[in-house]
Amino acid sequence: MNNFTFCSPTEFVFGRDTEQQVGQLCLKHGASRVLIIYGGGSAVRSGLLDRVQQSLTEAGLPFDTLGGVKPNPEDDLVREGIACLVGQEGILILAVGGGSVIDTAKAIAAGALYDGDFWDFYAGKAKIERALPVGVVLTIPAAGSEGSGNSVITNTATGQKISLRSPEHLRPVFAIMNPELTYTLPPYQTASGICDMMVHIFERYFTNTPDTSITDHVAEGVLRSIIEQAPLVLQAPTDYGPRANIMWAGMLAHNGLCGTGHEEDWASHFMEHELSALYGVTHGAGLAVIFPAWLAVVSVRNPRKAIQLATNVFDVPTFGLRPEQIIAEGIHRLRAFWHSLGLPTTMHELGVTDPDIDALVNNLHVTKGEPIGSYVRLDRTLTREIYELAR
Amino acid sequence: MNNFTFCSPTEFVFGRDTEQQVGQLCLKHGASRVLIIYGGGSAVRSGLLDRVQQSLTEAGLPFDTLGGVKPNPEDDLVREGIACLVGQEGILILAVGGGSVIDTAKAIAAGALYDGDFWDFYAGKAKIERALPVGVVLTIPAAGSEGSGNSVITNTATGQKISLRSPEHLRPVFAIMNPELTYTLPPYQTASGICDMMVHIFERYFTNTPDTSITDHVAEGVLRSIIEQAPLVLQAPTDYGPRANIMWAGMLAHNGLCGTGHEEDWASHFMEHELSALYGVTHGAGLAVIFPAWLAVVSVRNPRKAIQLATNVFDVPTFGLRPEQIIAEGIHRLRAFWHSLGLPTTMHELGVTDPDIDALVNNLHVTKGEPIGSYVRLDRTLTREIYELAR
Repeated sequence: MNNFTFCSPTEFVFGRDTEQQVGQLCLKHGASRVLIIYGGGSAVRSGLLDRVQQSLTEAGLPFDTLGGVKPNPEDDLVREGIACLVGQEGILILAVGGGSVIDTAKAIAAGALYDGDFWDFYAGKAKIERALPVGVVLTIPAAGSEGSGNSVITNTATGQKISLRSPEHLRPVFAIMNPELTYTLPPYQTASGICDMMVHIFERYFTNTPDTSITDHVAEGVLRSIIEQAPLVLQAPTDYGPRANIMWAGMLAHNGLCGTGHEEDWASHFMEHELSALYGVTHGAGLAVIFPAWLAVVSVRNPRKAIQLATNVFDVPTFGLRPEQIIAEGIHRLRAFWHSLGLPTTMHELGVTDPDIDALVNNLHVTKGEPIGSYVRLDRTLTREIYELAR
Repeated sequence: MNNFTFCSPTEFVFGRDTEQQVGQLCLKHGASRVLIIYGGGSAVRSGLLDRVQQSLTEAGLPFDTLGGVKPNPEDDLVREGIACLVGQEGILILAVGGGSVIDTAKAIAAGALYDGDFWDFYAGKAKIERALPVGVVLTIPAAGSEGSGNSVITNTATGQKISLRSPEHLRPVFAIMNPELTYTLPPYQTASGICDMMVHIFERYFTNTPDTSITDHVAEGVLRSIIEQAPLVLQAPTDYGPRANIMWAGMLAHNGLCGTGHEEDWASHFMEHELSALYGVTHGAGLAVIFPAWLAVVSVRNPRKAIQLATNVFDVPTFGLRPEQIIAEGIHRLRAFWHSLGLPTTMHELGVTDPDIDALVNNLHVTKGEPIGSYVRLDRTLTREIYELAR
């Protein structure tokens, strides 16, 4: 196990009707004014935004609102948010939505206290030294941004989709998680979110770091729960129990707990970000396409964790099977599971029938350098092989 | 799953040589002066206390020291610590040791900012409203106090051993966890710590709350890792990997993560506290005696979680076995596991050859009321049955 620091100070307030506490939580975390960030119409239509505003009003907190965050959130809206805040003090940025809304809120929170353009942080030209507090009312369990110190923003001018990590400054101060708010999430979005959280775990699980029993077992536990609960959520979208289990799993998958002491990988995410940037696909569905191809290619070179995943999570029997058979069966069960949730596992199924593999490979290595990943170091030859296999 | 709030803000700094960061961590968390609390001679003999003091000196932090904390820590030393602090400001209480030292530090931290006697908090006569920050350099993985908001202190005048819970005020601000500091822990103390952490999970796992898949799977993962790593630690006490896994497991077992959304039980802990208070036995070893007896008695009345534990953690096969056989085999495997670590599983093996069962039952219900526990509500008849079975 490697040395590590783990600090997840977010106050998670989980359960039915918890959004009614949002005003008091904003006060508790020092707000004297709130900027609400939200996405499309669903937070408005469902009445959630009204309830949030009412709670703020009851707490005596003035607020502004900024809607219109889109999936794969963009830099322009971040700048608009930052511009709203000029000259204001005691602001808390309140994200009401899923990962895209939270990531936008985090970018605004960091950019508002920085003299230059916020994109400097994402481009690696500047380091976040302080940020406004971010609060969350979560509506989509997927990105895990409610518990993470990460934010992913797309630069519309350059087409780059970049993930920024700053655990000290970007972790939300509180996150309200009411599973009932996820009842209306459509099946495809539900399934994509489930895939996203599973791959958040895989990116940490596939490591060469030795002696990681405790973190591996926790990760395997979260994965087993997701695999058990996901079909129940899709069968009965308004059953509280499965929705609650999936919602909490999504946070645990990405607050760092499933990677303590590990060297992490993240090549699959980098490769998917290029797919999203070029074809605008849903991130989680893109991962369902990229990850099995990644796994097939890396397992040939480094079988250890693929065998562990197959046996400990997918219950592949080891008796009488060769390692490559165990791995193949594990990958088969993973694909079959994602298929059963209605997810694609090839670019063709994803609707990308004629992918520009050259562009994907080029964009990937221009953005992320070469090689990428750590479980197996991937040069252009291997990333091309993965994209080709994912066709 | 029940509604819950989960907030574990402690900064965990884990790994080799991390105690060298203690001065900087104290500064980061606002200290301008430090009171070091420690136990017997081992922190002195090993040179750890010297290294800690050197790091504080390098950080320019003045400090005082208060040693002599004993297992089952007592109220007198807490009062001595509080008296040290009169008139001082900007103090951080630094615990260098295991659970007893940390619990003493927490009691001092709360008592120092209270006008009355600190015991009021433990006796339920007052509620903690503020406390000094507590930092930790952990040397014994067991109590989980490095990540919890709990503190257990024994009142020498009344003989009461009481656990106080105040997650908002008693969670340490940082905890340094260097597995190498645990290499010299004797086998019996190592094993007792392992039992303590397992029962911290069981107290949460045994619940009637429905729909707790995610929390159950995380708990089962931590238990499986402990069961896998514990024999390795005892075989090779100076191997880093197993010591590291056990150390992190001890924190996860008790920071609340393994109980999110559950109604918890804690009857076994209450029953063991009486055993410790009357006979001065090691807490973890006492739990190895009480818990299997508790499990045998409650499973007859409420078999659900005992079957789940037997199958998901101890791999008891279900095919062809009746529920009571599965449970019996699970309890057998648990006892056999603890025996294999050198722990007692009866009072006789623990050295309590003629227990005063009347006194244990009376003290228990005088301190904790009647009934106790929640998985099965235990009246005097049932707690007597458990103590008798544990003889």
